[in-house]
Amino acid sequence: MSDSDPKALRGRERELYPFFLSYRTRWIDNDQYSHVNNSVYYHLFDSVVNTYLIKHAHLDPSRSPLIGLVISSYCHFFSPASFPVILDLGLRVTKLGFSSVTYEVAVFEEGGNVPSAVGGYTHVFVDRRTRKSTPIDSDTKLGLEKLLPLNPKL
Amino acid sequence: MSDSDPKALRGRERELYPFFLSYRTRWIDNDQYSHVNNSVYYHLFDSVVNTYLIKHAHLDPSRSPLIGLVISSYCHFFSPASFPVILDLGLRVTKLGFSSVTYEVAVFEEGGNVPSAVGGYTHVFVDRRTRKSTPIDSDTKLGLEKLLPLNPKL
Amino acid sequence: MSDSDPKALRGRERELYPFFLSYRTRWIDNDQYSHVNNSVYYHLFDSVVNTYLIKHAHLDPSRSPLIGLVISSYCHFFSPASFPVILDLGLRVTKLGFSSVTYEVAVFEEGGNVPSAVGGYTHVFVDRRTRKSTPIDSDTKLGLEKLLPLNPKL
Amino acid sequence: MSDSDPKALRGRERELYPFFLSYRTRWIDNDQYSHVNNSVYYHLFDSVVNTYLIKHAHLDPSRSPLIGLVISSYCHFFSPASFPVILDLGLRVTKLGFSSVTYEVAVFEEGGNVPSAVGGYTHVFVDRRTRKSTPIDSDTKLGLEKLLPLNPKL
Repeated sequence: MSDSDPKALRGRERELYPFFLSYRTRWIDNDQYSHVNNSVYYHLFDSVVNTYLIKHAHLDPSRSPLIGLVISSYCHFFSPASFPVILDLGLRVTKLGFSSVTYEVAVFEEGGNVPSAVGGYTHVFVDRRTRKSTPIDSDTKLGLEKLLPLNPKL
Repeated sequence: MSDSDPKALRGRERELYPFFLSYRTRWIDNDQYSHVNNSVYYHLFDSVVNTYLIKHAHLDPSRSPLIGLVISSYCHFFSPASFPVILDLGLRVTKLGFSSVTYEVAVFEEGGNVPSAVGGYTHVFVDRRTRKSTPIDSDTKLGLEKLLPLNPKL
Repeated sequence: MSDSDPKALRGRERELYPFFLSYRTRWIDNDQYSHVNNSVYYHLFDSVVNTYLIKHAHLDPSRSPLIGLVISSYCHFFSPASFPVILDLGLRVTKLGFSSVTYEVAVFEEGGNVPSAVGGYTHVFVDRRTRKSTPIDSDTKLGLEKLLPLNPKL
Repeated sequence: MSDSDPKALRGRERELYPFFLSYRTRWIDNDQYSHVNNSVYYHLFDSVVNTYLIKHAHLDPSRSPLIGLVISSYCHFFSPASFPVILDLGLRVTKLGFSSVTYEVAVFEEGGNVPSAVGGYTHVFVDRRTRKSTPIDSDTKLGLEKLLPLNPKL
């Protein structure tokens, strides 16, 4: 899924990620073990990715001809976080193909430099109606290229 | 449930609420009608209330002898919001009893002055183990009094 | 919000509700107080109402010209439930207007006869595009009438 | 993460999984693309795993000395599902160590024989208080062994 083993992911630094958003955790995010549940990290991945697509890559989830569907996802959890902590989500693109893109997302506690979790997922872009795989349009591609390692400035 | 009719709630102004927190909406908050689902507002109520209790009213959800259980809740929805909007949650206390407290929460879109939704709920404080209703301890009461209309400064 | 006081709601019996669905609770439904969080009941209200609309009242959330938007909701909580309990949701209509419908939902633990919670909400039907209030079409109305007290047989 | 490539996972059959539970999807599970959101599958993984642990492997999330924490998770999505579909979750154990266990979960639409999604996660068992890794106790181990391929009868 990822070309990196968990040890490499655990050492990820903030500087690798060109785009960041901060999310307040919510009361319901903590499960009965009093920490943010593993599945909540995927809610946050979806949120930072789609906010980027909407604000910086010309995607309109209600009207664009193409939409991005997740075909696989993964996450490695290194240290627990707990409500009401604020989580900083760093986003980068690790692979950009004709019709698909793979994101890596790192989760840091506000002010922290060691990730609590690192994961990601792969979007395949499809036609909204037929749901068939379709090449990413040039405006969206331009936005996504800004998240590639070689072009880390947003 | 509330002593106010929907018309009065619709006219609520930001100045009424002594405590505010801003929440980024998440991708999953939008249901298939492309707006923030009604149930998500209750997630946010829980989040602003419990953040206040933890940070300003000496409640520790993992260790305090008393915990607050919701016995009733309600919400009136005036205008839809949609991911990725940021929502400002305003909190006040409308009734403070021996062992219970009733909160009112107003939801504004970032920068807006007319509420998208106004609702609230009643917490009964109970002993963590027996789950029997128990008078609110003085530290927590002091924190909650700061949210009463007569004492609007935090 | 409701014409019934909490005491009356607490005495609700299964026989009042013409339509039932059972839901497995999920791990994430329990918050850190180890019981099903108050907001989760609203997820379930939405689920039983929309399943009924889709299967028994000719509503297709992706294509119907009209959609139902929640304008107010409420819930009274009488006893806690905890994962992995199965919850039986009973649904009835308490008010059916030209363009709006008010549902009451009772939540019973599997096999139990005393409700854990009773609440509900009001749907206003609107045009999918303009989002303006619109009279309920006759097919949907016919389905909803079957949930009225005078016609309790599904 | 998994020893299997996506192609192998896509061919998974129901017979491989000794334990099954069926879950009704919920209205909020569908995101604005009108299909069950990727993150919801992880809610379901958590639910089937913890139900098994509670009912068949002597784990009590509120009192057991050991609790299972997720250290990594993954999922491959093969075909979309949509509310109000019922999803059958099949569970098996692919690796059982001294203090950790790796589960594989397959998601089938009710009545279907081709998985919509296959994923899983690894639990490390830790002391509830110190959160340090601890050997799985014999009662829980006995329960988990029943999910291993060599002993597929529950």
